[in-house]
This record gives sequence, structure tokens and C-alpha cells, in this order.
Amino acid sequence: MQKINKILSQIKPLNQQIMKNVSEHVDQLTKPIGALGRIEEMAIQLAGITGKERPSVKKPAIVVCAGDHGIVSEGVSAYPQEVTKLMIQNFIVGRAAINVLGNQIGATVTVVDVGVNGEVDHPSLVKKKVKNGTNNFFTEDAMSETEAVQAIEAGMEVAQNLIQQGHELIIIGEMGIGNTTASSALIAAYTKAAVQDVVGRGTGLNTDEHQHKIAIIEEALRRRNVNDASPLQVLARVGGLEIAAMTGILLQATANRTPVIVDGLISTAAALVAYEMCPMIKDYLIISHQSVEPGQKAVFEYLNKNPLLSLDLRLGEGTGAALAYPLLDAATRILTEMATFADLGIEKNNEATESTV
Amino acid sequence: MQKINKILSQIKPLNQQIMKNVSEHVDQLTKPIGALGRIEEMAIQLAGITGKERPSVKKPAIVVCAGDHGIVSEGVSAYPQEVTKLMIQNFIVGRAAINVLGNQIGATVTVVDVGVNGEVDHPSLVKKKVKNGTNNFFTEDAMSETEAVQAIEAGMEVAQNLIQQGHELIIIGEMGIGNTTASSALIAAYTKAAVQDVVGRGTGLNTDEHQHKIAIIEEALRRRNVNDASPLQVLARVGGLEIAAMTGILLQATANRTPVIVDGLISTAAALVAYEMCPMIKDYLIISHQSVEPGQKAVFEYLNKNPLLSLDLRLGEGTGAALAYPLLDAATRILTEMATFADLGIEKNNEATESTV
Repeated sequence: MQKINKILSQIKPLNQQIMKNVSEHVDQLTKPIGALGRIEEMAIQLAGITGKERPSVKKPAIVVCAGDHGIVSEGVSAYPQEVTKLMIQNFIVGRAAINVLGNQIGATVTVVDVGVNGEVDHPSLVKKKVKNGTNNFFTEDAMSETEAVQAIEAGMEVAQNLIQQGHELIIIGEMGIGNTTASSALIAAYTKAAVQDVVGRGTGLNTDEHQHKIAIIEEALRRRNVNDASPLQVLARVGGLEIAAMTGILLQATANRTPVIVDGLISTAAALVAYEMCPMIKDYLIISHQSVEPGQKAVFEYLNKNPLLSLDLRLGEGTGAALAYPLLDAATRILTEMATFADLGIEKNNEATESTV
Repeated sequence: MQKINKILSQIKPLNQQIMKNVSEHVDQLTKPIGALGRIEEMAIQLAGITGKERPSVKKPAIVVCAGDHGIVSEGVSAYPQEVTKLMIQNFIVGRAAINVLGNQIGATVTVVDVGVNGEVDHPSLVKKKVKNGTNNFFTEDAMSETEAVQAIEAGMEVAQNLIQQGHELIIIGEMGIGNTTASSALIAAYTKAAVQDVVGRGTGLNTDEHQHKIAIIEEALRRRNVNDASPLQVLARVGGLEIAAMTGILLQATANRTPVIVDGLISTAAALVAYEMCPMIKDYLIISHQSVEPGQKAVFEYLNKNPLLSLDLRLGEGTGAALAYPLLDAATRILTEMATFADLGIEKNNEATESTV
């Protein structure tokens, strides 16, 4: 916990002065004030995160954190646990969706085993296994607090390495059969949203199975006594190892002022854990997309954040975040490449600005 | 009109057999059925458009069609007409937003003068001027039908050239002070939506000016007698030259089975004109984004189409379409680069599919 507390103490607010300067620059660019909407917002946020007037997001790194979930014993998932390992093989050989989308944006893909049930062996796999999947949190805590700390620290180490290698932006994604269940439980626990409002069908549950998943989570939250728990305790009791690792990545990257793109439901849950540990994280969060899973909405309302995309995705792996990356790249480019009105010899923005009035 | 009729006769339905084949392939990829949401939809649509099982959208070409609008005499725009020319200079020197976003996606930017009021001279400008801006459609038809046909044909020629040069996808954008007014008028005329529901504030109108803009369009639509007019007549009476050119690009590209990305309000109005001339166009339309301007919504409902992005943009130029291009690129890549379950040695999709159940 010492390492985590040290990182938490290093997280500082967004750089307001830089944001003000960049906002003024954006208003001098050859377009009507505000006409690039959320791209402008992203440019200003990236400036505030990085503390740079011309932020850069080159060399994006995708991290896929993998872990298994004991809760699958309760029949909350349409797919067997073995799929986690099979998909990791697919990531490693570079043929999964996240590899394809990573190639498109010139990103590296790092796969981290934080808690896969069983052995996966490959030179390119980052081995940070804390345990062979979480315990079934219907019957016992998903993990001990010590294990949760280990998983967070694993993510911190991965982020630190990537940042040292010159990656200017990190995309967090995940793989783990059962992890919408853990994510929904975390979201219900932290936001106090009704369980039925934050639990989806994963990818294939029918109505009865969906109701069963809701009932399991409701009862598990009662049994795990999450109401009087600290953020870390909630994570340990109903969370996941890969979720904890993503929280660690967010904490470390934020302390280093490196932007992170959050993916779908599961990485949004990880972002929520990070927020509960350090509320300042909120201003750093870049949520790539709203997935089909309903649980994210409760977080968006709770944190007053808006996703960039809404493309009916429900794949995870970091795919939505990879698809959003070009928007952030665009945001940095307008700051450096667009002409200002002064460049065109025009004095005031409001004298000559609009292309489509 | 002969050239246009010939092109209209060449437009054929989407290739249903190819779409079926691609849909089956998508369901064999290593992800849960449907988990890539609209990216999968785009992959299937692109296959149907191009008639290819592995469609490609390489070498995107952005076309910025520029034209002026006589209706600005009625005080419907916050900015003077001269801005059209100034922005064209900016496009030509490569420092406007569309140039920056075009560079990002490796696109060429072609600027076409279809009806700018006054002379712009530059070797890289494509000169297809029909007239020095439209007439004021509050007092007379914006243009003659012959002029509308000329402007459509100008767009057709530009598209034909780009396709011959190997561009596999075209992005349509525009520049023209006053063109939200013409676009809103066209949308109200074709969809029968209430004028007040489709007229926005452009980029800077206050409430009184906004009400004035609505009143001008309502009265102009009465005077121009759009209710009993053919699609081409409506375009000639209240449309714009750059809008007509974008319609021509859409018609030509569709006949050639080359995908086009539609930008914001103005290019959506151009797409609507194309639809009215040839309803089959609807299945070909790829609408990049929902802009801040309200007029698009009426078209989306009328055509039952959904935009890909919603980023509070209101710049035009093709910027929203350029921002959406990576989503289409991603759609083509998943078809060629992702592993199928058979590749992984797994027989059935529903046995092992989900990353985030």
C-alpha cells in the first residue's frame, strides 16, 4: 500500500494556466469559436493533463489486462472460463480485434496476466499473476486486500515501464470471462445505483439468466458488506484482478501526467475505483465510448462525464478506446497545424470565422 | 440533365449476396456475435456498396465544394460573404481544420469553386464556377434549373476524376457563408418538417436573428412554391451551388460503387437532394456525425439513418466526415486481419467468443 499511497500523493490537479492558454489559442484558430466541439475540449483537457501547451499523444500503448473470476461458478456468464486463455493466445499471435485496431493507430499491444486461471506461457506475455483468478465473491471475498494491492501495483509497474519507453498515451483494455459481473458489482457498490440498472446481459444471457445474474450480485453485495468498506476493500471484496491492474495503470499514468483512454464497462469500473481512491482523477478521465452494457451510465452520471463515442460496442479488449484514439490525435494536431486568424492577416476572430453559417 | 439521367440509371441496389457473405464472415471472427456493433454494420455496408467481400477505402479524397449565397442579403448570417473567399485561401495553403484532419488520415483535399462570389485564382483550385453565388431566394429562384444541373455535373466530373485516380472513398465537405440557410430550406421543403425545427443559429446568431432567419426561410419557401416542385426544381429554387455539386459527387460515386462519407448539415442536405432524385441512394449513405445544427435530425428521421459520431461539431468543410473515416478504415481491417474461430481451431462461435462477459 506504501507504493500506492506515494503515487496518490503525486497526483496533482490539471494545469489550469496551461488550459487557459490553450483555450485562448483554440479561439484564435481559423474556425468559429467552439466549432470543433469536443475535439477542442479534448485539446484543452490533454493540455491540462500533460501540462504542455502543445500536448502530444504519439506512440500509444494498449495494455490488455487479463484475469479470471471465481464468480463464474454461479452461472453468471454465457461462456466458460477457458475462453480467457484462448483469447490471450489470440492477442499474443496478433489476430484479435484489439491487435487489428492497434495496428491501425500504430499502437503496441501489451498483454498482462494479472490473474488468469492457469498457465499461459509466451515470451511477449507480461507475467504479473497475483493468483489463479479471483475467489467466488458470492461465497467469499474476491481477493484479500493484499492481493488487490499487488494487482494495482502490477498495473503501476506496467504503466511506469511504458511511459519510460516513450509512450505518450496509454489505452486500457481487458479480458476476463465473468468481468462484467465484477464490474457491475463495483459500480453498484460505489455509486449506490440499483443493481438491476447496472447489470447487462454480457454477451449472451437470456432473460432468466440475466435475472439470475442480478440476483447473484444483489445477494453478493449484501454478503460482502460493501456499504461500510473503503474503496480498496470494495475492490478486494467484489472486484477483479485485471480491474485492479487497470486502476493501477490509471493512477501511475495520472501521476506521470500521461493521458489514459478508458474503454468500456470494465475499464470504466477500474476508473471508478481510481476515482474513489483519488477524486482528482475525475478531471483526467477520457472515456472513449458508451458500450451496450448499461452499467457505464451510472458511472457517467456519478462522475458527470461523457463518452466520446457510442457505437454499440461490447467487446472490451480496449477496442473502443483504440477507435477513439484518432479523435485525441486530431485534438493535438489542430493545436499545432491550424492557422490562426493572425496568420491569415485577419485581426479578430468574430470578423471572419465561419465556414457554414 | 442527360448526363445526370444516365448516372441515375446506373445506380443499382447494394449487393445483397456480398453483404450476406460478409455478414457470415463477421460472425466467424474471434469476438462475440455483434460485439463490434456499428463497425460490423459499416463493414457489411461497405461490402454492399463496393460489391467486394473485402472492401478497401484507401486513398481517401476530401472534396470541399465552395459557393456563395444571395440569401445573405436578408441578414441570415453572422458573417460577411467575403469569408468564403478567405477560407478558400486557407484551404489552398493547407492550414484550415480540414487540411489538418485530412493530413491525419492521409487524404488529399480538393477545393472546387462551384459558385464563389468573385475570383479566386490558384493552380490547385478546381474551377467549376457556375455563377458568382446564388441569387437571393427570398426574392427570386436561387438559380435556374440549368445552373443546378451544371453544378451537379461539376460534382460528377470531380468525383469521376478522383475515382479514376484510384481514390477508394470520397469525403464531401463545403464552404459557403449562408449555406445553413439554404440547407435548412431544402430540408424543410423535402421532409415537410416545420421550418422552426430545422433552423439553427449557424455559428453566431442571437435569438432575434435566429427568429428572423426562420421567418425569412418560411416566407421564401412560400414564395418559391416548393410544394409542387420536382427534386431538381426545389434545389434550384432554394438550394446552393456547392450543395448541388456535393449531390453530383454522391450520384457519380454511387454509380461507381465508391463509398462517400457525408459530413454535417450542409452535406446531409446534399445527400437528401440525391435521395429525392434516386431513393436507392439511401442504402449507400454513410453519415459521419450529428452536428449542433438541428436540421439534420429531420433528415435522419425521414431517411431512418443514424450518424456515426456526435461530437458537437459545427464547422463543416468535411471535418466530421474526416474524423469518422478511421471507423470505416477499421471496418475494412477487421474483415482482412482478424482471426476466425476456425483459425484458432475452435469450431463454433458460441462455444468460445466473449472477452467481457
